[in-house]
Amino acid sequence: MQRTVAFAKAHGVAIGAHPGYHDREGFGRRIVRMGDAELENMILYQLGALAAFVHSQGATLKHVKPHGALYTLAAHDVPTAKAIARAVTRFDSHLTLVGLPQSALVNAAHEFGLRVAREGFIDRAYKKDGTLMPRTASGALIASPARAVQVAIQLVREQTVRTLDGSLIPLEVDTLCIHSDAPNAVEIAKAVHEALRAEGVLVRAMG
Amino acid sequence: MQRTVAFAKAHGVAIGAHPGYHDREGFGRRIVRMGDAELENMILYQLGALAAFVHSQGATLKHVKPHGALYTLAAHDVPTAKAIARAVTRFDSHLTLVGLPQSALVNAAHEFGLRVAREGFIDRAYKKDGTLMPRTASGALIASPARAVQVAIQLVREQTVRTLDGSLIPLEVDTLCIHSDAPNAVEIAKAVHEALRAEGVLVRAMG
Amino acid sequence: MQRTVAFAKAHGVAIGAHPGYHDREGFGRRIVRMGDAELENMILYQLGALAAFVHSQGATLKHVKPHGALYTLAAHDVPTAKAIARAVTRFDSHLTLVGLPQSALVNAAHEFGLRVAREGFIDRAYKKDGTLMPRTASGALIASPARAVQVAIQLVREQTVRTLDGSLIPLEVDTLCIHSDAPNAVEIAKAVHEALRAEGVLVRAMG
Amino acid sequence: MQRTVAFAKAHGVAIGAHPGYHDREGFGRRIVRMGDAELENMILYQLGALAAFVHSQGATLKHVKPHGALYTLAAHDVPTAKAIARAVTRFDSHLTLVGLPQSALVNAAHEFGLRVAREGFIDRAYKKDGTLMPRTASGALIASPARAVQVAIQLVREQTVRTLDGSLIPLEVDTLCIHSDAPNAVEIAKAVHEALRAEGVLVRAMG
Repeated sequence: MQRTVAFAKAHGVAIGAHPGYHDREGFGRRIVRMGDAELENMILYQLGALAAFVHSQGATLKHVKPHGALYTLAAHDVPTAKAIARAVTRFDSHLTLVGLPQSALVNAAHEFGLRVAREGFIDRAYKKDGTLMPRTASGALIASPARAVQVAIQLVREQTVRTLDGSLIPLEVDTLCIHSDAPNAVEIAKAVHEALRAEGVLVRAMG
Repeated sequence: MQRTVAFAKAHGVAIGAHPGYHDREGFGRRIVRMGDAELENMILYQLGALAAFVHSQGATLKHVKPHGALYTLAAHDVPTAKAIARAVTRFDSHLTLVGLPQSALVNAAHEFGLRVAREGFIDRAYKKDGTLMPRTASGALIASPARAVQVAIQLVREQTVRTLDGSLIPLEVDTLCIHSDAPNAVEIAKAVHEALRAEGVLVRAMG
Repeated sequence: MQRTVAFAKAHGVAIGAHPGYHDREGFGRRIVRMGDAELENMILYQLGALAAFVHSQGATLKHVKPHGALYTLAAHDVPTAKAIARAVTRFDSHLTLVGLPQSALVNAAHEFGLRVAREGFIDRAYKKDGTLMPRTASGALIASPARAVQVAIQLVREQTVRTLDGSLIPLEVDTLCIHSDAPNAVEIAKAVHEALRAEGVLVRAMG
Repeated sequence: MQRTVAFAKAHGVAIGAHPGYHDREGFGRRIVRMGDAELENMILYQLGALAAFVHSQGATLKHVKPHGALYTLAAHDVPTAKAIARAVTRFDSHLTLVGLPQSALVNAAHEFGLRVAREGFIDRAYKKDGTLMPRTASGALIASPARAVQVAIQLVREQTVRTLDGSLIPLEVDTLCIHSDAPNAVEIAKAVHEALRAEGVLVRAMG
């Protein structure tokens, strides 16, 4: 029981929920069109199930970030974004909701009075409109730790990002995402962490 | 949000969880053989998911009763019974665990310091060993409200039950079960409720 | 083994497949956005599974009609319609594909050289564009056998249908659909069958 | 469409079905207790679904081998073994059924007039009774290609196997199994194939 709590304390990390569509075959990367109330209940269900494990270890949930197709849809679809924000509010109004800067999700979180963390991606290429290139597009994935470090520092220091087609766009973010299923995710994480600390940036867990 | 709470207060009912095997095709009436830790986590998952809805309505879970094949197995299989009791304890040690009198489940609940409600069935026939006739056996289901009333009063007043083969066996119970999927479940419930009140028995919600 | 065959022969019915999205919670009435190849494989999978049962009874599949959200989407979405037609062709190019008149699905079937049955609904209201009113809309369901008879005869005799807003639109159909989950589906089916025979119309199974 | 057929011809392999319990969380390694008719239908369903893909590539199914917990249970449980044999017979009575030598499954296959291939495992340790050590037991997995070669040649040449506790038991087998999810499965397969050919043994596909 103490293991998770001790781990979280020792490493300064926070535990968050990553709810997504109930789509096992597609790993949640396919949209399942459903009503807003259905979606809200699906999120609530997943938050409750995860929280049971977190609480049984003496830890607490700190934030919620939708997964895969749900995250992408919630960036621009207002009813979807509101359904997520409503579910989070019903479950625990002290949770932080994570989403793309200036997205429908972030707007919905504000509307429901939730804390918000605007997210930047350091291992994915951006489009001019501030959304991500689809992961199947050429050049969409950033595999080089050096390039990821560059993106991270620019996001934190200048609040801008260079898009795949070379434009410079503003992007205000509160948290950085590294996809843990990339083969060299740990290497990237270490490089970015060290570079940020060397720059005098304080890296802290969510919440 | 107030609806569920108001309903529960107005009708004097308590909300419980009814976790079972993840077996949709078989409605949880088939055993899925799994390790004890897997089973414990499966229960924890279901309790958490349900509790999220209950809490979001301002209500609270009061008891847990395993469903279908899991209930039957937990009546005599000690590792299964302990895995359930452990999951309930991890989730909320104030919950009441419902099981057959003198079952492995009730023993496990005592061992983990949980409150226990021993359950009697008024719409099912008993075997001599105090377990239920399988629902597919001839005579296993009691459909007559009059007969159900008789069983209920005998259980409460004398703490005995007449088995399908005519024996009289002792059975100490704290709670009565009526299967809500029987066609005349409501009729049976009303008849039993009235008969018990007419006998001066106080009928109260769990917990 | 002879039972199904005998049944089909005695009653003059044909057996068809009704593949849909793998969406149990939503009964296939929700779109699961997937790639065309995924969709094609999903259809192929369902056709094969059903055919195993049909063949083991000595019977044969005669037609395929997509279910729920897939049927609706295939009426206008060309890639979806082609994926279905391709799956059917891969499985058995002698099958008849059932779809809305003038739909993308019917066009795709023609393109793949499949036999086609254009379908009319006698228990659902139509929109001006020849598609169905959503089942949740007021007036969308036709519950009256007399009205269903009227629709059926008009479809067969005049190849037109009266829409919910009173327009008369042309609709050439080869087969009539009655939803078997309507409470009085059998009553409707009998009334329509008798009325069509009284009109001298020959009612035959698909294929 | 020609790809699979060409591949099978070029490499001299046969395609078989590997049906198992519908247990995704447990990868089919947990028993789902079900009635014999349910089990029979589950197998038929899976055979049909797979065959649709095989046939659409111009290839044919040659054999059936139950997977995981179903294979293990069918080795000694007669009703389970018969349900499998019945499903295979209903689907295609020319298929070969693969099972442990002297198992209930092999007996059932004989009873239903199916062709049988008795299977030996070259990457798993045996118990004295000719069944496999559970994969979680110490010493249950054979990872050394040299040891696998030794087991294979002894099975083929002498029709015996050395059990984990050192006994020598007779084991007549028609086919050899290598688990493809072992990290060095390809290495083992190559070593065994070469060793058998060097011994003058003709290695052929099933059927």
